[in-house]
Amino acid sequence: MATENLFSQVVPVQVKGQGCEERRINVRVSIELQSTSNPIHRKELVVRLTEDTDPFFLYNLVISEEDFQSLKLQQSLLVDFSAFPQRFIDLLQHCIQEQNKDIPRFLLQLVSSGSHLDHTPSFLNVIETNPFKHLTHLSLKFLPGSDTDIKKFLATCLKCVKKEKLQLEQRLRKTEEDLTRQLNYTQQ
Amino acid sequence: MATENLFSQVVPVQVKGQGCEERRINVRVSIELQSTSNPIHRKELVVRLTEDTDPFFLYNLVISEEDFQSLKLQQSLLVDFSAFPQRFIDLLQHCIQEQNKDIPRFLLQLVSSGSHLDHTPSFLNVIETNPFKHLTHLSLKFLPGSDTDIKKFLATCLKCVKKEKLQLEQRLRKTEEDLTRQLNYTQQ
Repeated sequence: MATENLFSQVVPVQVKGQGCEERRINVRVSIELQSTSNPIHRKELVVRLTEDTDPFFLYNLVISEEDFQSLKLQQSLLVDFSAFPQRFIDLLQHCIQEQNKDIPRFLLQLVSSGSHLDHTPSFLNVIETNPFKHLTHLSLKFLPGSDTDIKKFLATCLKCVKKEKLQLEQRLRKTEEDLTRQLNYTQQ
Repeated sequence: MATENLFSQVVPVQVKGQGCEERRINVRVSIELQSTSNPIHRKELVVRLTEDTDPFFLYNLVISEEDFQSLKLQQSLLVDFSAFPQRFIDLLQHCIQEQNKDIPRFLLQLVSSGSHLDHTPSFLNVIETNPFKHLTHLSLKFLPGSDTDIKKFLATCLKCVKKEKLQLEQRLRKTEEDLTRQLNYTQQ
């Protein structure tokens, strides 16, 4: 399986749920394109919502080429599967650009269908607000990660952070050695 | 709740299970004493087995003062709850000291009661081998961590490694600044 990382950025998101107060959080949106060629050639777009400060926050969406056909029909999209990721990323970039404005023109919303955000599917909506109305550019249904999903995700994060930590340790050691050597050389 | 860390070291463990080959792995044994005083004063000894290279390996044992009374009776122990942790640690230290010997006198064994190590309780045994026989000094029953347990454990690890990484970044920056300043000073 080949994985192509297309996007991973923190985007402000307005969270809405039944019976809970509206709040704004910073959500990392990660978009990957996964391809398998065995037994048949398949591509899937994997979108993950996480929060850097809350290790248990995880929402997943997997869109296969077939899923995309229904999504396309249902939401009147005019692009095909291969062009979709970049259009989605463009929308996310609009939200990032507008994030510090009092009335952002583009806004990401995470709307829970149940009373508790944690255990029901949620919709990630890209909303444009113009003087006339709220326009929904895209609405994607995400499933909250199960304990198994979260466990796997955290193991991957841990592996990655440990690797970065090791590289830092090596860099620190090398920097200390290099500069001490230079210092000794200069002092001679 | 107050937590006192009593021990956290990597100990070689011989793993035995029904239908799986005997193998040796390095297991981190962590021992903590947790005390709560609300609503009543309670102490619990929490023992955790993890493997630094396998994020999903997690076994837990919680011994309350009441649990200890049964353990004491059942295994003919002569110490009380407060003295037990140090005696357990002494046994683990023996295993660590003996780890490089061909025939270690003290050995930790993790024995699974079922065919798959991952989903059945396992016994951690401290075994002394003398010329006459194998002597079991202690046998403790551990439960494998559920996905929820592993998820929580990994989140704690991740938080900890991220903190260490941040400290390293700060140290690297400071080292670079300090030594560059010294170098500039010396070159003048």
